[in-house]
Amino acid sequence: MADIATRVYNHKWKIDPIVRSLIDTDFYKLLMCQSVFRNNPDARVTFSLINRSKDVRLADLIDEGELREQLDHIRSLSLSRGESTWLRGNTFYGKRQMFRPDFMEWFEHLRLPPYELEKRDGQYELTFEGAWPEVMLWEIPALAVLMELRSRAVLETMGRFELQVLYARAMTKIWEKIERLRGVPSLRIADFGTRRRHSFLWQDWCVQAMREGLGQTFTGTSNCLIAMRREVEAIGTNAHELPMVYAALARDDAELAQAPYKVLADWHEEHDGNLRIILPDTFGTKGFLDHAPDWLASWTGIRIDSGDPAEGAETAIAWWKTRGEDPREKLVIFSDGLDVDKILELHAQFAGRVKVSFGWGTLLTNDFRGLVPGDALAPFSLVCKAVSANGYPTVKLSDNPNKAMGPEDEISRYKRVFGVGAQTPLEVIV
Amino acid sequence: MADIATRVYNHKWKIDPIVRSLIDTDFYKLLMCQSVFRNNPDARVTFSLINRSKDVRLADLIDEGELREQLDHIRSLSLSRGESTWLRGNTFYGKRQMFRPDFMEWFEHLRLPPYELEKRDGQYELTFEGAWPEVMLWEIPALAVLMELRSRAVLETMGRFELQVLYARAMTKIWEKIERLRGVPSLRIADFGTRRRHSFLWQDWCVQAMREGLGQTFTGTSNCLIAMRREVEAIGTNAHELPMVYAALARDDAELAQAPYKVLADWHEEHDGNLRIILPDTFGTKGFLDHAPDWLASWTGIRIDSGDPAEGAETAIAWWKTRGEDPREKLVIFSDGLDVDKILELHAQFAGRVKVSFGWGTLLTNDFRGLVPGDALAPFSLVCKAVSANGYPTVKLSDNPNKAMGPEDEISRYKRVFGVGAQTPLEVIV
Repeated sequence: MADIATRVYNHKWKIDPIVRSLIDTDFYKLLMCQSVFRNNPDARVTFSLINRSKDVRLADLIDEGELREQLDHIRSLSLSRGESTWLRGNTFYGKRQMFRPDFMEWFEHLRLPPYELEKRDGQYELTFEGAWPEVMLWEIPALAVLMELRSRAVLETMGRFELQVLYARAMTKIWEKIERLRGVPSLRIADFGTRRRHSFLWQDWCVQAMREGLGQTFTGTSNCLIAMRREVEAIGTNAHELPMVYAALARDDAELAQAPYKVLADWHEEHDGNLRIILPDTFGTKGFLDHAPDWLASWTGIRIDSGDPAEGAETAIAWWKTRGEDPREKLVIFSDGLDVDKILELHAQFAGRVKVSFGWGTLLTNDFRGLVPGDALAPFSLVCKAVSANGYPTVKLSDNPNKAMGPEDEISRYKRVFGVGAQTPLEVIV
Repeated sequence: MADIATRVYNHKWKIDPIVRSLIDTDFYKLLMCQSVFRNNPDARVTFSLINRSKDVRLADLIDEGELREQLDHIRSLSLSRGESTWLRGNTFYGKRQMFRPDFMEWFEHLRLPPYELEKRDGQYELTFEGAWPEVMLWEIPALAVLMELRSRAVLETMGRFELQVLYARAMTKIWEKIERLRGVPSLRIADFGTRRRHSFLWQDWCVQAMREGLGQTFTGTSNCLIAMRREVEAIGTNAHELPMVYAALARDDAELAQAPYKVLADWHEEHDGNLRIILPDTFGTKGFLDHAPDWLASWTGIRIDSGDPAEGAETAIAWWKTRGEDPREKLVIFSDGLDVDKILELHAQFAGRVKVSFGWGTLLTNDFRGLVPGDALAPFSLVCKAVSANGYPTVKLSDNPNKAMGPEDEISRYKRVFGVGAQTPLEVIV
């Protein structure tokens, strides 16, 4: 029996919306948003879309009208009652009322601010300007919309069974990865793949497959909506945007040098336990750790998000030792460009020496490599970053110079202030 | 929105029936049934299930109660009005009213006769006795039920995503086969996979995938229900059962020697064009062709169903030449144990020399090899054959002695009567 009402209802949609909820976003965005809402609510920031994969000409693939419709739809969203109840009442990282009432009240009334969209050289220039706590929430939905519109553009001409087989192949591919990860003792993996996912439904499928296939090895998802619906843990801590904006707001070199620690001091006041995870690479991991205050060594762990991951972990282990900490009690979270080989390799190398955890992103939720002619569904490197704060440009150095961003003279200044020497460029795959 | 009514309705089913229609059977069964209904309506036959793959212990895998429920459900079926309309009104092999009104009236009132079921040595002994036109219609549904109950038994313990990935893998496997066949000029392939299918829904999927993936290269399906619903050609001519029963009914060696030709003489009266396909191997191809009457050489083609297929086709080509026929005008249908490699090899070898066509069976609709541990879903060699007629045992020699059946002394007698010498045993895969 066809459900006539459902069918008619579906026909009433003007578009098939990609993002249908304000919490279809990464959990750490909400944690950071609450932190910004408390500490820097009036900072004005600009976020900008940056496609590092120039060969993927998004403006040729994606119709501007469709893109605007999707973005406009996101601006029409507000927090639903059930979503609010979940955020207020759910336990995150073992803690109730993670989100404070004043933040929740603000969030319940939030609509995302306007966007600016232009085409240039086959790419979209998409920017968001306004108050930091509002603008920052555009990052994930903007990326998800562009990623999924690109998928739709490629899938447009495929036949029904061709499509089914495409997804069959993609499912097989993920499942083979899951089978390789299954049964590895003490392995812990979370889904970090919202921003570069093939599509929402696909990420949702991947999360459920991970849960069935990996059981306790699968620790949760960064996606709040999926965490809520599938009743799995919401995972995430903080990101480069905090030190980048704090640094841009610094009034002189001395304040600049302290900015990354100021971020974590603010975080320290708000969070404890597994939320105290250092992200050390924004302006170079080595200098950051060398000059870190002692209280940071007591934090639970570190997230390695650029550079050679094994080297990053060794650096952290050595640092903890010099600060009198036992690395075996510390958590190392790997989250940069992971796939199964790398996960298994890093796990074999570090399990037992530290607690190891993985945030598996793009190659979990968007590994469509090799599945269509011309590899037109392969993931690509799209980011949406804070590029200025109160009119000052932001800078990121990273442990991989290919991931650096900001004006050249500012990069030089940051390198000098943070004592960053020679760096090894690594290819950015996703 | 869930369709509540559908869900409640589905819960009302006592079982999930495997065979839901009397025309969920091979088209040639109905053609043969009509022929038997005209020429031998009163012959009493026994059909029996034979599992050539002794290592697949069906009685250990399949619950007897469930098997009985499925078989009882088949006995409750009768031809629906729409099915009858389709059989009466559809064009088969370019001909309207293929099925005569007297046959249709009989078929509309048919219910399948009782079955006998016992367990022995881990196998089911399933037999059907009665009037030939009725009993013969048990063959395909009985096989389909056992094949699918075996699939269900293996799938029983699998998780939801594990199941989805299993089918994803199977779909990928079929699609890769289709992609290899796509674009080969003059290739023509039909689905002959009803009897050994993994399941009804799977066969239905395969047919649709073949249609989308192969276009005109896909000529149709042997399954009447799927042909009707998917609006593709119903394909098939005749099978070993006719000469086997005609031979068993022969009163002496002279009549026995003529029995296979008598079958085709009756067929000649009823059918023309592409339905005039010789199946020569029941008692050995070579002797059959050597002693064939001249009018048989004018038939449209030949079906190669045992022995080395290339050798069989060469034998047919040589025979047509000795009878003054042009092989390029003749059709050779290969239908024994085919998979893509063999199809492409035979096509390359014979295209242009004859018209070539393929009836692709088990490895189209049941290629689950290598997809679960212990290869527990691999297809196996189950048949349901006429074993006696009016109390006399039937015999099949085949061009592959591993496919021979019947009492030993009768096999010797048949070999003598039909002048069958040394034969090459070939492994029966499916």
